[in-house]
Amino acid sequence: MAQKIEPRTLQGFDDRHGPEMIVRNYVKSVWEETFQSFGYSAIETPSVEYSEILTGKYGEEEKLIYQFHDHGDRHVALRYDQTVPFARYLTQHRNLLTLPFKRYEISRVWRADAARKGRRREFYQCDIDIAGTNSMLADSEVLQVLSRGFDQLGFPEHKILLNHRKMVTGFIKSLQIPEDKEIEIYRAIDKLDKVGEEGVKTELKNRGIPENVIPQILEFISIDDNNNDVVLEKISKLIGNNELALLGLNQIKEILNLCKFAGINDENIKISPRLVRGLDYYTGAVFELVIEGFPGSLAGGGRYDGLCSRFSNEEIPAVGVAVGFEPLCSLMAERNMGPTNTAPADLFVVLFSEEMKEDVLKLAKSLRAQGSRVQIAYEPSKLGKQFQFADKLGIPKVIIYGPDEKARGVYVVKDMKTGEQVEEKL
Amino acid sequence: MAQKIEPRTLQGFDDRHGPEMIVRNYVKSVWEETFQSFGYSAIETPSVEYSEILTGKYGEEEKLIYQFHDHGDRHVALRYDQTVPFARYLTQHRNLLTLPFKRYEISRVWRADAARKGRRREFYQCDIDIAGTNSMLADSEVLQVLSRGFDQLGFPEHKILLNHRKMVTGFIKSLQIPEDKEIEIYRAIDKLDKVGEEGVKTELKNRGIPENVIPQILEFISIDDNNNDVVLEKISKLIGNNELALLGLNQIKEILNLCKFAGINDENIKISPRLVRGLDYYTGAVFELVIEGFPGSLAGGGRYDGLCSRFSNEEIPAVGVAVGFEPLCSLMAERNMGPTNTAPADLFVVLFSEEMKEDVLKLAKSLRAQGSRVQIAYEPSKLGKQFQFADKLGIPKVIIYGPDEKARGVYVVKDMKTGEQVEEKL
Repeated sequence: MAQKIEPRTLQGFDDRHGPEMIVRNYVKSVWEETFQSFGYSAIETPSVEYSEILTGKYGEEEKLIYQFHDHGDRHVALRYDQTVPFARYLTQHRNLLTLPFKRYEISRVWRADAARKGRRREFYQCDIDIAGTNSMLADSEVLQVLSRGFDQLGFPEHKILLNHRKMVTGFIKSLQIPEDKEIEIYRAIDKLDKVGEEGVKTELKNRGIPENVIPQILEFISIDDNNNDVVLEKISKLIGNNELALLGLNQIKEILNLCKFAGINDENIKISPRLVRGLDYYTGAVFELVIEGFPGSLAGGGRYDGLCSRFSNEEIPAVGVAVGFEPLCSLMAERNMGPTNTAPADLFVVLFSEEMKEDVLKLAKSLRAQGSRVQIAYEPSKLGKQFQFADKLGIPKVIIYGPDEKARGVYVVKDMKTGEQVEEKL
Repeated sequence: MAQKIEPRTLQGFDDRHGPEMIVRNYVKSVWEETFQSFGYSAIETPSVEYSEILTGKYGEEEKLIYQFHDHGDRHVALRYDQTVPFARYLTQHRNLLTLPFKRYEISRVWRADAARKGRRREFYQCDIDIAGTNSMLADSEVLQVLSRGFDQLGFPEHKILLNHRKMVTGFIKSLQIPEDKEIEIYRAIDKLDKVGEEGVKTELKNRGIPENVIPQILEFISIDDNNNDVVLEKISKLIGNNELALLGLNQIKEILNLCKFAGINDENIKISPRLVRGLDYYTGAVFELVIEGFPGSLAGGGRYDGLCSRFSNEEIPAVGVAVGFEPLCSLMAERNMGPTNTAPADLFVVLFSEEMKEDVLKLAKSLRAQGSRVQIAYEPSKLGKQFQFADKLGIPKVIIYGPDEKARGVYVVKDMKTGEQVEEKL
């Protein structure tokens, strides 16, 4: 007898089933519908890419990419997000595509994150991207899609935090800080929520930022008001005449305006000067979506005009967002949101005896043809046991169809909750 | 300037887009509906498993498994199929599951197959499995699901080839061939389509099968008739009184009967004694689905009662099938089957001028609320250019809404095929 292998999964790689899958499939379908309602096309990119496609684009996170050598000793990697593969896709198929090009993809990505954080190492993302236009209508549309999706899912209180890399960069430049320190500042700011103002001060010092400008940086990232006009005015004062920062500021204003035109409520968008996002490739608007009471963000994205030029001489401007499918599904489960009917079938047909197999199969077939999801019993065990089984699965109605019912040309539908029985004609 | 990275995909790992994705999503949804109509629940298992979970189950194919060491130096592997992970899942979560348990999964698997064969190394499979029952109703249900799905997709002529491992094994045993040669015989038989009868003869000789029994093996696998009763009678004569073979024969007869009860036409199932399937883990009925004019099979499966015992002391009998999603989609594309509307949107709203942005966004929103898929133009370029763009994407209708229309409280819907224009009230 061969030794047993312990059935187990890798940490961060989880099985999903039961009601959780019902929520997952529901959330997936809401995003698919939402994306399609704005005219996004589905694409699929592979799970495995040449390593060089992915490396050098994620900053400090790069060490989390799963990499290995394949059977032909090629250096390959599991997809870390869906954005870099999309930039690769765009440049590879450029001659087939009509720009602007809008796509969505809902699929798995992999990150070798620290298990102690309880993070998943395999998870889904729901991405949309618009490539080939500089128009702020595109940036604003991405926010419209986000807002509509979260509305549909039952989160009308969602808040989109909005900032602009150029506004921050311009401001930093106006402080006469050397250009190579910019990304250091982003990384320090990114920690504000974790380490607080004092912590950011220390971070900035440790990363070699001149002490005399630190108060100004802190003033900038501390701007916080629910009235976006107030925030914009404060920012406006701090950035002065810096051209880059002004460009960013004006684009933010335009995006805000377009979102208002498209019917997004003022309360759903908040300018947040401290939002910078960790990834290296953003160049314009950046945004995250948060929901009161849930730590962390449920979606994140931005404009990344320079990414395609890593693969091609043509610049293809692009903007997009990834919805964090896993935190969203967790939140919905936590709050008991989503479909209430989680039964695998609408009807369970009991099997009275071996002799009834033919009739049961025929009945099940005709019920399916009428649109019901129908399970049948595989064994003619005691009826009570069959009822119990249906009940355990949460199937709401059981169909009893024995020789007696057959003789009378009927079948009995029993409601498992009320116990009520109704006869139906065959 | 950093060096450009060539945008390219690994051989066997393909991007999918355009009309191909429409067909893929359609086929996926047909299988989902079909699986659900029989009461199957969705589950998801991870893409990456401990290597030991997968190894030792696929026979000669095992060398095609992608394996590597993860960041914690664990020996891990990409999923090769969805059956072995399902057996692992069943035993790992045994205490949570009510048997019989029916699941479906539509997801990616990976095989490092020879590129010269033009095979994909990453592809989707659509699997269903029923675990926890020995009833032939389960085996027959799997065939019913297959048959219904292929009917729905427009292949009423599909043919399910059916055989039984116990019937073949019993027959081989009755020839006094040593037990350890059994799998060798399967592998030789499996090559019949490729190498012909003479080739199989040579294969059998080379694999050490006594020459005196080879004619009988060939007689067995050569049985071929469209009338299943004729085939069953011929098999019956060859297997004599071997108990194991008789058990297989009777199960096949029962499955055939149940399929007939469930309304599957005689022409859709064919007993095929030569069908053995390459994988090691089958123990009962085995089957494949073929369609005239398409080389190779479009689905394959069988009963695998011993697989779970590799992970647990409890035997959990199971039967299932994997639909080959990729060949199926290729075949449908080849024959121009599937949805004819492959446009990413129903309506394209042109942008007359910067000033019309607000109105266009509002109109698009209300059209979406009515259920249309609506794209808007991002730039107020020349109208002709905007029409051309919509036409290139195949969007059937364009909406013209300029200051003039606005003043009159209407918008114009232009049919891109006929050129006809209709005014609608706002």
